[in-house]
Amino acid sequence: MSATRPKQVVCLSGGVGGARLCHGLARALPPEQLTLIVNTGDDFRHWGLYISPDVDTVMYTLADLADVARGWGLAEESFTTLEMVTRYGGETWFQLGDRDLATHVLRSQWLQEGQTLTAITGRLCGSLGVGATILPMSDAPCPTMIETVTGTLSFQRWLVQERAAHDVLRVFSNGDARASDQVLRAIEAADLVVFGPSNPYVSVDPILALPGVRERIARKPVVAVSPIVHGAAIKGPLARMLQTIGKTEPTPGAIAEHYAGLLTGLVVEHGDDASLPALMTHDGHALRVLASSTIMQTREQSLLLAREVLQFAENL
Amino acid sequence: MSATRPKQVVCLSGGVGGARLCHGLARALPPEQLTLIVNTGDDFRHWGLYISPDVDTVMYTLADLADVARGWGLAEESFTTLEMVTRYGGETWFQLGDRDLATHVLRSQWLQEGQTLTAITGRLCGSLGVGATILPMSDAPCPTMIETVTGTLSFQRWLVQERAAHDVLRVFSNGDARASDQVLRAIEAADLVVFGPSNPYVSVDPILALPGVRERIARKPVVAVSPIVHGAAIKGPLARMLQTIGKTEPTPGAIAEHYAGLLTGLVVEHGDDASLPALMTHDGHALRVLASSTIMQTREQSLLLAREVLQFAENL
Repeated sequence: MSATRPKQVVCLSGGVGGARLCHGLARALPPEQLTLIVNTGDDFRHWGLYISPDVDTVMYTLADLADVARGWGLAEESFTTLEMVTRYGGETWFQLGDRDLATHVLRSQWLQEGQTLTAITGRLCGSLGVGATILPMSDAPCPTMIETVTGTLSFQRWLVQERAAHDVLRVFSNGDARASDQVLRAIEAADLVVFGPSNPYVSVDPILALPGVRERIARKPVVAVSPIVHGAAIKGPLARMLQTIGKTEPTPGAIAEHYAGLLTGLVVEHGDDASLPALMTHDGHALRVLASSTIMQTREQSLLLAREVLQFAENL
Repeated sequence: MSATRPKQVVCLSGGVGGARLCHGLARALPPEQLTLIVNTGDDFRHWGLYISPDVDTVMYTLADLADVARGWGLAEESFTTLEMVTRYGGETWFQLGDRDLATHVLRSQWLQEGQTLTAITGRLCGSLGVGATILPMSDAPCPTMIETVTGTLSFQRWLVQERAAHDVLRVFSNGDARASDQVLRAIEAADLVVFGPSNPYVSVDPILALPGVRERIARKPVVAVSPIVHGAAIKGPLARMLQTIGKTEPTPGAIAEHYAGLLTGLVVEHGDDASLPALMTHDGHALRVLASSTIMQTREQSLLLAREVLQFAENL
């Protein structure tokens, strides 16, 4: 916890919200100082192809290719293959665009050839001009499973195919994957770890659950950006999950409680700081709180928030 | 060799030329009377996907979806995925369109799930409204290899990637595949076998080479449509292959010689019959020859030729 600018920053991220903070961090920091560790618990096979939704969202966002309005996939996208798949009676619940498909086709081919997801992500990012390092949390499958009253589903089937229809009772990982060596090394080298405004249950926890990750992060200054703003999640099923799994109301305080023992600082939306209870860090200090503008709808908002997070971390 | 209309017709086919005759036969016959046995020696993996060029060409042609002018792939095609693959530095020597890609993606998925190529082809054909039965010659890989002075390549790499730059010394099959049961049964049930105007070396021979196929066909009336017209092939590298492999000039007579022992009748282009030497069938009769219009650039020309072939076969 030095008073100088962190030299090496690691950000843990899921999809859209986390990706937008990553975009800001990538503009605020030189590429060699930023490593993004991205959840792969949502990864699954569709049309026989390996899909890595969060990695793709972070990659496309950093490449300025993401469709911001739609919230997933690539901008200026067409769906010609999907139309033909529909005609053939193939599965259409998960929509893949024609440009997006290139990512999944090549990734699947390269995986089949024995390359790691980490190496493949680096190769794709290089082609798209992404400077910061994007690391999938693991090179092994570790599917996040969603247990509801009606049964247990993989995350994308629950979220997209079932439209999150049933309340989540439990989230667990179906596998015993380990973090990649690159992930563990990046955390060890970090001066600051940021938890993006992602869903703790299905985006950040899967990363923290990998052997060796949590204890390495616990030795570092950690700043989380709250994914809960004024009692709601900007996007996705988090608010309801806090109620059904966490048995708590959706507040930034609940996020801080969830990450208890890890956080040094918490960034919340302006106004949300007033209602926060007094929170403690694991070493008995009061948790530092920064109120900021955390809703990122533009590149500029992402950059401003990223700069505030870095500034906040300098003064911890 | 009855004087009645054949009840069950089997046509052996490669890509474009054969596919066009198949299209005519499919309009001339009720679907339950026609089985098309298609070469799979050109099949290969590209972008990790299973591509079956001749099966696709026959299927697309029968569905009236083929791009007639281009000579491969689907009409009204776009190449959005290919553009993105190019950006990623993926292989682009074999061009896959966005609609076409749906075929390869689903086929690859279904193969991975354990379905046979035969079942998958039936499923795809059903979705496209193709009535006649299209049978891949085998459910097992049997890649046709092209030996040239500079080395040995798979067929598509030689034809498309190398643009058939080097003369072919030898064509051989890299595998010990067997014909599918459906193929053997269809031949057994046939009253007439037609060899489409396809390349004997790389389209028809791979089918004939499968154990059990040649001897079953030898018991049937067989009519071949010459792929050589006025000393040249309508499309593809056949004329040169007849010279370098067959050590013969590209004439319909050379085609008849190639199929020696199998043919009952030969259909040649008007004018080509005059220069034909006297040819014998395996049972000592003179080979019957029909001069017709064999160039099929329209659906109507395909239908007329198919009707002539069937009429000719009735009178053998």
